Amino acid sequence: MTDTQYILNTFLLLFSGALVFWMAAGFAMLESGLVRTKNTTAILTKNICLYSLSCIIFFLIGYQMMYGPIVNGDHSGLSDFFFQVVFVATTASIISGTIAERMKFWPFMAFVAVLSAIIYPLQGSWTWGGGFLSEMGFTDFAGSTIVHSVGGWAALAGAILLGPRYGRYKEDGTPNLIPPSNLPLATLGTFILWLGWFGFNGGSQLAMATREDVDAISAVFTNTNIAAATGVVTSAILTQIFYKKVDLTMVLNGALAGLVAITAGPDYPSMELAMLIGMVGATLSTLAIPMFDKLKIDDPVGALSVHLVAGIWGTLAVGIFNPNVSLMTQLSGVGLIGAFVFLSSYIVWYVIKLVMGLRVSLKNETQGIDISEFGQSAYTFDNRQQEGVTN
Amino acid sequence: MTDTQYILNTFLLLFSGALVFWMAAGFAMLESGLVRTKNTTAILTKNICLYSLSCIIFFLIGYQMMYGPIVNGDHSGLSDFFFQVVFVATTASIISGTIAERMKFWPFMAFVAVLSAIIYPLQGSWTWGGGFLSEMGFTDFAGSTIVHSVGGWAALAGAILLGPRYGRYKEDGTPNLIPPSNLPLATLGTFILWLGWFGFNGGSQLAMATREDVDAISAVFTNTNIAAATGVVTSAILTQIFYKKVDLTMVLNGALAGLVAITAGPDYPSMELAMLIGMVGATLSTLAIPMFDKLKIDDPVGALSVHLVAGIWGTLAVGIFNPNVSLMTQLSGVGLIGAFVFLSSYIVWYVIKLVMGLRVSLKNETQGIDISEFGQSAYTFDNRQQEGVTN
Amino acid sequence: MTDTQYILNTFLLLFSGALVFWMAAGFAMLESGLVRTKNTTAILTKNICLYSLSCIIFFLIGYQMMYGPIVNGDHSGLSDFFFQVVFVATTASIISGTIAERMKFWPFMAFVAVLSAIIYPLQGSWTWGGGFLSEMGFTDFAGSTIVHSVGGWAALAGAILLGPRYGRYKEDGTPNLIPPSNLPLATLGTFILWLGWFGFNGGSQLAMATREDVDAISAVFTNTNIAAATGVVTSAILTQIFYKKVDLTMVLNGALAGLVAITAGPDYPSMELAMLIGMVGATLSTLAIPMFDKLKIDDPVGALSVHLVAGIWGTLAVGIFNPNVSLMTQLSGVGLIGAFVFLSSYIVWYVIKLVMGLRVSLKNETQGIDISEFGQSAYTFDNRQQEGVTN
Repeated sequence: MTDTQYILNTFLLLFSGALVFWMAAGFAMLESGLVRTKNTTAILTKNICLYSLSCIIFFLIGYQMMYGPIVNGDHSGLSDFFFQVVFVATTASIISGTIAERMKFWPFMAFVAVLSAIIYPLQGSWTWGGGFLSEMGFTDFAGSTIVHSVGGWAALAGAILLGPRYGRYKEDGTPNLIPPSNLPLATLGTFILWLGWFGFNGGSQLAMATREDVDAISAVFTNTNIAAATGVVTSAILTQIFYKKVDLTMVLNGALAGLVAITAGPDYPSMELAMLIGMVGATLSTLAIPMFDKLKIDDPVGALSVHLVAGIWGTLAVGIFNPNVSLMTQLSGVGLIGAFVFLSSYIVWYVIKLVMGLRVSLKNETQGIDISEFGQSAYTFDNRQQEGVTN
Repeated sequence: MTDTQYILNTFLLLFSGALVFWMAAGFAMLESGLVRTKNTTAILTKNICLYSLSCIIFFLIGYQMMYGPIVNGDHSGLSDFFFQVVFVATTASIISGTIAERMKFWPFMAFVAVLSAIIYPLQGSWTWGGGFLSEMGFTDFAGSTIVHSVGGWAALAGAILLGPRYGRYKEDGTPNLIPPSNLPLATLGTFILWLGWFGFNGGSQLAMATREDVDAISAVFTNTNIAAATGVVTSAILTQIFYKKVDLTMVLNGALAGLVAITAGPDYPSMELAMLIGMVGATLSTLAIPMFDKLKIDDPVGALSVHLVAGIWGTLAVGIFNPNVSLMTQLSGVGLIGAFVFLSSYIVWYVIKLVMGLRVSLKNETQGIDISEFGQSAYTFDNRQQEGVTN
Repeated sequence: MTDTQYILNTFLLLFSGALVFWMAAGFAMLESGLVRTKNTTAILTKNICLYSLSCIIFFLIGYQMMYGPIVNGDHSGLSDFFFQVVFVATTASIISGTIAERMKFWPFMAFVAVLSAIIYPLQGSWTWGGGFLSEMGFTDFAGSTIVHSVGGWAALAGAILLGPRYGRYKEDGTPNLIPPSNLPLATLGTFILWLGWFGFNGGSQLAMATREDVDAISAVFTNTNIAAATGVVTSAILTQIFYKKVDLTMVLNGALAGLVAITAGPDYPSMELAMLIGMVGATLSTLAIPMFDKLKIDDPVGALSVHLVAGIWGTLAVGIFNPNVSLMTQLSGVGLIGAFVFLSSYIVWYVIKLVMGLRVSLKNETQGIDISEFGQSAYTFDNRQQEGVTN
């Protein structure tokens, strides 16, 4: 290992980690664009606080459990910590979307603490920490399962215990549409996540000290990009067919589903295959949204459809298309991690519900939790300007 | 070529490509900030879909035509593809602004497909693909002509066939001002584009394996930045003189005009000369806006003034100031590419108009195409909050 | 010095400089989110113009005064210029927040010109230019004092001469709360600044040609991140205790206070110590906000509390915790720089006030300076959509 190799490896992790940090902004913008204005301050506060808390807790407890002490190796130990810590925050960000518009702040933060201290690092240690799943041959390059479906399972457990937003389902069980409040923000959030994903997937090569490394990273970048692009086009076509109108919210989720799906194995496929993986991911995600509604699992931002459903698909796709990986092993990994995370999350949510309560009062929920719980509207527009009075 | 050189060259293209990808977000924010709220979902949908479609089409068809097969050379072949593909998307993004608020979605996407498959790569092959313009000595470092004026010419042809927005010009031909809806978004978009431009121009050095390379990239960064900065200050001063008020929209366009102008040759000039090039670019762009209005060519975001006018100026400036480049050759390149792109685009738009129609109905345009064509408002603010009722 | 070392050092400065450029967007979003809608165009215009002007002036005058001519050394001279110039702009950005909603445009720009030409580079030369403060042993790694408190002192002098916004304080001296207009923008701005800070602090290592360099940069990244994260959590807890509600605006300022505080020495501490430094920074910043209100120094965005107060703390913290640095020397540096910048800024503001006037008329201030001074509302929402009429 020459000095230059050590420098290049370390820089890759710092550069990529900064991009993954940026995904925290992406989730904050995406989610605040998709909820109602009356719950926007809440989701912004949750997003910046969950990022911060998960960094602190993973530093104090989680990292050691997952990887052992921070030491220099082929790259600086601290650069590895920096890259890994932003992954935990990503997992937690997925959850905040699903439980939006009705969960109290501190109980949510309590869950984030447990997730970052125990649930995430424990299951992560099984694969990325060199544990039994990696010995079985389970493969998850950048975390379709270990990050995205984990966030999805934890969110699902929370959503079940929390129940849907007031007024979300009619008496006959059909959903009331609650329109998103700010689509430019949601679109910006999607672009931020897409950009961050180049770090998320590219950095997961963990080295750029050889030609083979940068060739692999180049494949990761192009496959990540084309899977997302295909997800976009797929969702545009599907919503045109199903609803006779291209639906922007679904298109954004199509991009994210493509990204989540390619994440388990962005290094091995051809670009044509990456397109297929993204296309199927976006299709499954589009179909999953009405399915969760049938089950009355209320997910204001579609995080379950994107991160859980496309995450599972992406992990299985590696077993299907990569001849070196067994589909059965992939299935086992998905199942074991899913069962562990769903059950442990359910227990943790349940205990928090008993001790602190999960849900704001109906009065506060109706009024909007920005004013009732956070004391601040997200938007305070001057009325005279709204009325077109400009002088 | 050592391994380290190969790694550094490849990383430059990946890093720069990610920054150019980010420009897609910049165009989406800029354009959605400048159109009216009732057409904001539309422009967001067009922007994310055009990026995605142009990536797919350029992969399937365009790249090969422009550069030949994807192979490793002084850098990974896929990293070169990644860098080049985001340029095509930039070209297409320019068009979406000019045709905003009145064009149907799928006809626009059809044009994007043809642009990415044929028009862009064919003219691009003449210079960057080693074709006859490069043999003539035509020089366009990062694409003032090959990207920006090409986008401008294609947009111009579309705008002519499409006609102005309803109510944009009075019966006597003078323009009605349609104010932009969201200036923070437009400003954010400009900053995003400015940041992305460091990748756009810096990455166009295509290598950072020698001292000469990074010295050149350093010059590119500083010249790009100072040309944009001078564009800003120029527009601020000009609008103060002309309108007695500093006009933010024009200032943003001044930044972009400075960026477009320096793009044809950001590597050779001194910073003083870069300032001059940016200043002239912003001045021409500021003057072009009323000129297009005189011609009743309606361009909601000023894309023609910025990308076409400043793009031509920047390409000619290389002929004027760089002693190794002939002004006549630059003029020839600008003229040949302009004639080809304008004519071929006109024909393609015309065929699309015949087959699919270009324009939404007057009823839908008046109502706003977000609701009538996309079924979703971009902003759904809670009325009670608007009225100041906060509990 | 090998070619590879020269390339890596140069690239670090270009990469980091691009991230610091991005902070200009962060300040623009943060400040436009915190002011009222009627003054949003103004703050956006000021932010993009101040960045641009300070780049031009620092190139023409300031850089030479601070560092001498632009020459190649261990890295490309232009890459060093690029990195340094974005620091000046950061200093100027701090000021625009404090004087928001009431200062005229051109007088503000005149101050920015003097700051970039003389005040910033002169005091900067004392430490980073190898002057007497660096000889005394004064240490400021990335500018808690040299950038952030300098911006704070200059802003303080301006705020005193300018006076508070109309209606900001009641007759009995207690403050009227003026709510922020757009918290998603403010949150986005904070995330942008946080991302940019990795370049701000990481790039200040100025080299990545050795293992020691990248180990140091890794420490800088992790410490910067954890100090900000701790600032967030600290402010969340403090506002919960003080106000019984987590206050998002204060949480955002907590992140920034943590970042400012760690900036004077992000390379030496353990992560635990970085947490402590961030925690104290956020606490002091939270306490400072009511203190400035007692003094009737009106600071619409809390820039003084964040940049001045946490900047001083961070610089002193190096003296307290780093055994190689003397607290007395740190105190001297803070005091000398503070005295010079406050006094010289006060004189410059005073002269500008005499010659051009600083403040818009009461009529214009009441109406909002977007319309009265800039002729353009930042937000123009279609009324029918606001009323829920969507077709």
